Amino acid sequence: MSGRLIGVGVGPGDPGLLTLNAIAALNEAGVVAHFAKAGNASNARTIAASHLKPGVEELALLYPVTTEIARADAAYREAIAAFYDASAAAIAARLDDGRVVAVIAEGDPLFYGSYMHLHVRLASRYPTEIVAGVTGMSGCWSSIGAPIAQGDDVFTVLPATLPEYELERRLADTDAAVVMKIGRNLPKVRRALDRAGRLERAIYVERGTMANAQTMKLTDKLDTPAPYFAIVLVPGWEGRP
Amino acid sequence: MSGRLIGVGVGPGDPGLLTLNAIAALNEAGVVAHFAKAGNASNARTIAASHLKPGVEELALLYPVTTEIARADAAYREAIAAFYDASAAAIAARLDDGRVVAVIAEGDPLFYGSYMHLHVRLASRYPTEIVAGVTGMSGCWSSIGAPIAQGDDVFTVLPATLPEYELERRLADTDAAVVMKIGRNLPKVRRALDRAGRLERAIYVERGTMANAQTMKLTDKLDTPAPYFAIVLVPGWEGRP
Repeated sequence: MSGRLIGVGVGPGDPGLLTLNAIAALNEAGVVAHFAKAGNASNARTIAASHLKPGVEELALLYPVTTEIARADAAYREAIAAFYDASAAAIAARLDDGRVVAVIAEGDPLFYGSYMHLHVRLASRYPTEIVAGVTGMSGCWSSIGAPIAQGDDVFTVLPATLPEYELERRLADTDAAVVMKIGRNLPKVRRALDRAGRLERAIYVERGTMANAQTMKLTDKLDTPAPYFAIVLVPGWEGRP
Repeated sequence: MSGRLIGVGVGPGDPGLLTLNAIAALNEAGVVAHFAKAGNASNARTIAASHLKPGVEELALLYPVTTEIARADAAYREAIAAFYDASAAAIAARLDDGRVVAVIAEGDPLFYGSYMHLHVRLASRYPTEIVAGVTGMSGCWSSIGAPIAQGDDVFTVLPATLPEYELERRLADTDAAVVMKIGRNLPKVRRALDRAGRLERAIYVERGTMANAQTMKLTDKLDTPAPYFAIVLVPGWEGRP
């Protein structure tokens, strides 16, 4: 009799944005797994810390590489695929023992989450359940009270890693947008927003719903290095009544 | 001394997807306001029902029109603007009395939510706070365990009310998509997906995280009338490792 896998969204950072279902999953699970960069605390674990039950087995899944090797590099793909395979095998061993394993994920598990790499390796073989979470982007626009999209708006999420002309084209062709993975791409994103005519509306958000969040109009932000997880919001709803 | 306005996301339908902050807001508020079509129960109220404290004042905000008049019609815009003005005034009167007013909203308050119409009328005049919520679309892809977007995917939310050629063009130009407000637009959405080459991946979801949810491949769904709030998911991440 095999156990059960639960992909648990723990929201964008504020522990108050945990859902009742997430807390119930943490109460039920005998194993709680979380991703982190080696040497760093897992953000998801930090968010959920006060709900980890005593004696629970924690399984830290530590990325062998993050940004040291380019994503397009074959060495990166090989290292990261082997890492997800090994992580899935470690979880499968516990599921085979009949245990309930909760994989906690920042934001929503199936929206740009690392959990997805485990899901595609395990969900067809074990009973699996997803607890939806508040996304990082919802946390960001809520923390600054910025209405993001309404009515018949088209809303687009763009990775800042896209080529500059692609960013420009897509920013000019949507009502509302979120640009993710800002990091080193900030100058490029700024130029693309400017040429798309959207720079004036753009808002820069760093560490979203964390205690040390920073928010400003993008026009007030210097081109100094930004964190990888910083985002830029371009609110839509320009024709509001 | 004025009160405080809280826009509270109550998530997509399952009461277990309420956040701790949403429950805290409902405990604190002396007034709970919710939108509904006249004669119908408010979905947000149904979701939050077990957390409404005894004796709380409920303020039902009843739409004077919904789909009886076309949105583009001046009569619609006039009626709906007057309704939002009157709703904001009713809330302002309570805030002026120093009361805390929670406006509960399905999903996330600032993501296509009616609460936004109150927010733009009140947030500059009263202390205002937003409690982010799990969106309806997160609830939908989580309930069926469908990984929606990953890595450098572009993700697009489209209203099914767009012209057919616009739907086709945008569906062909994104990695992942959610099409909202399906209702009478189902045949048009199906044709657009087909010509964009995305029909095979499309999933139809009705009443997302409700007990009576219905999910199927869009190719298995008949062109019979669909609920207004049904959505179609087009998962991205086609190049998954």
